[in-house]
Amino acid sequence: MSADPVVPETRVLAIASHVAYGYVGNKMATAVMQLLGCDVAALNTVHFSNHTGYRQFKGTRATADEITTIYEGMRQSNLTDFDVMLSGYAPSAAAVEAVGAIGMDLQRKTEKNPGSFFWVLDPVMGDQGRLYVNDDVVPAYKKVIHHADLILPNQFEAEVLSGVKITSLSTLAEAISAIHKTYNVPHVIITSVQLSDLTTNPSTTTSPTTLTVIGSTTRSDGSPRLFRVDVPALDCYFSGTGDMFAALTVARLREAVFAASPTLRTTRSWVSPDDVKATDLPLAQSTVKVLASMHNVLEKTMEARNAELAATPTAPDDDALAQVDAQKRLHLRQTKAAEVRVVRNARFLREPTVEFHPQEWKEEDLPR
Amino acid sequence: MSADPVVPETRVLAIASHVAYGYVGNKMATAVMQLLGCDVAALNTVHFSNHTGYRQFKGTRATADEITTIYEGMRQSNLTDFDVMLSGYAPSAAAVEAVGAIGMDLQRKTEKNPGSFFWVLDPVMGDQGRLYVNDDVVPAYKKVIHHADLILPNQFEAEVLSGVKITSLSTLAEAISAIHKTYNVPHVIITSVQLSDLTTNPSTTTSPTTLTVIGSTTRSDGSPRLFRVDVPALDCYFSGTGDMFAALTVARLREAVFAASPTLRTTRSWVSPDDVKATDLPLAQSTVKVLASMHNVLEKTMEARNAELAATPTAPDDDALAQVDAQKRLHLRQTKAAEVRVVRNARFLREPTVEFHPQEWKEEDLPR
Repeated sequence: MSADPVVPETRVLAIASHVAYGYVGNKMATAVMQLLGCDVAALNTVHFSNHTGYRQFKGTRATADEITTIYEGMRQSNLTDFDVMLSGYAPSAAAVEAVGAIGMDLQRKTEKNPGSFFWVLDPVMGDQGRLYVNDDVVPAYKKVIHHADLILPNQFEAEVLSGVKITSLSTLAEAISAIHKTYNVPHVIITSVQLSDLTTNPSTTTSPTTLTVIGSTTRSDGSPRLFRVDVPALDCYFSGTGDMFAALTVARLREAVFAASPTLRTTRSWVSPDDVKATDLPLAQSTVKVLASMHNVLEKTMEARNAELAATPTAPDDDALAQVDAQKRLHLRQTKAAEVRVVRNARFLREPTVEFHPQEWKEEDLPR
Repeated sequence: MSADPVVPETRVLAIASHVAYGYVGNKMATAVMQLLGCDVAALNTVHFSNHTGYRQFKGTRATADEITTIYEGMRQSNLTDFDVMLSGYAPSAAAVEAVGAIGMDLQRKTEKNPGSFFWVLDPVMGDQGRLYVNDDVVPAYKKVIHHADLILPNQFEAEVLSGVKITSLSTLAEAISAIHKTYNVPHVIITSVQLSDLTTNPSTTTSPTTLTVIGSTTRSDGSPRLFRVDVPALDCYFSGTGDMFAALTVARLREAVFAASPTLRTTRSWVSPDDVKATDLPLAQSTVKVLASMHNVLEKTMEARNAELAATPTAPDDDALAQVDAQKRLHLRQTKAAEVRVVRNARFLREPTVEFHPQEWKEEDLPR
């Protein structure tokens, strides 16, 4: 007999982009959550052939109206009893607002039952110092984030939201404090922190072969409760890892909250009592499990990618391909080879074979 | 350690409808195939809030152009190395033609490697004696089916395609023969045959509590090689079971072909040699496994549905719901409760606990 469902019964509304081929956005998130046993309603914000990392794609974007209409369709048939909402890429400021309105509607429906609905928001705006959305998307997110329970910015998005330039562990802590305070958002994880170019405090920088993830659940006085997880970085760029992180977090955080205490799951936003240490937070427990699964799956993906790229390329017998130059063809081939092998490695989503540990991280310990 | 992937590595292009909530069309097919370990590219032909069995839904249909464009997007980046294509609902005659053109393009690319690509076509046109597509969809399918390797009509669709009214086992055999001959399609499965209203040959009718599935792989002279599988029917209507059958068949048929003989998988359309008995066909071996998984999952779904409907309904606190009458509310509730619990019962997709057996079925054995 194969494994039983991994996580508690969880009904998720996932709102993000759809690509026909490959694994990013909702295509990644839906697969990951389903493979862990979550029931997922998938509201797709774009319908593309493939992810933009290929540098070419075709398809259409959903308008804000189309997004709202799909939700209205579910609502009119009473199909909105979701435990969690995961919102990712939305293709315009109006679409971000439409998604925000959905999250707020679901919150209103459940306000008499604290903890029965939880909103994970991935504020997809840019990466590596560069916005890849229209400028007006930023203020749209800044309005909406106030309502989320957990946000998952990358380092650049955390800078945009906090207004703090992250150049050290202490400015990182500052950024998280600012996000907690400014947006009143109880949980934050900053994914993929790379401080390796830092020279001011070399002893505290993370190594270039280490990926650092920082998270925090607010205390009742609004102060951050910080933990940090260091994991070995893989020497390869994969698309969709943010979506994978978010999807795994949906499943694993709720599991950790259910395991933590009977009262936590009925506490608004699942905020642990002040005496719970940072490393004992469900958010920290979830994050180490998420990162372990990701490490396993990405390692397997890299092996498969290397084998695929090492294999003799088949002669292009395709008219379209014959017209593109060798460099473009190589980029397409490399991008395809790096598609995350999430389905074939589902066993590592369920049971990772590596184990990481959270470290507590007190602001007063930080070098200044 | 959880189970390893179940079926051989299989890259599928699945073209069908998407619903945000629930499990029909591509939402069902993609989940089922991924849970069995297939890599699925999902090209969605509609974007609806929920399936039409609710009697209300919102969303948009893809145009034929939009379908073609997504495929062109994949093609230009060389993302079309599919092992199997599964095509289901298309929302217009032009969309059926667009999907047909995709199947033919994939066949052209692989014509030098017989057996390396296989097209499963579900000619979704209607059910229970009634078309639910425009009239012009029928001739569109009649053109396209010539190119498919396996088609999966239900009883009504088999009648439409064959021109034979199915009123007995012998007319059923006639319909399958006609489909093999008219469309030159090597494999046919007629799903959900109900002959219980037959009075002409009561001894040969299937019992109302039995569901009969009939399949055939053609012999080299074009004659059918028929098998039949009887399974206990469940007293509940579920949406999406046709899509579930098709998706499971994609995974299980390829697995059975790979297990059958080293030459079969490089034989055009995976047609077994004439000396292979009907019950030993990969199609028959696959079908019994598919039906076993479906029986397990639907039985579990029915249990969960009954429990859900027996539970005290929560008072509707929703404005929209307050406006609908009690009967409509009941229908919505019953339809929702009958959504197939495919994700929570994934273990039965991987390892069904019941076993069914194919029976050989020679035309000369049939009562006339």
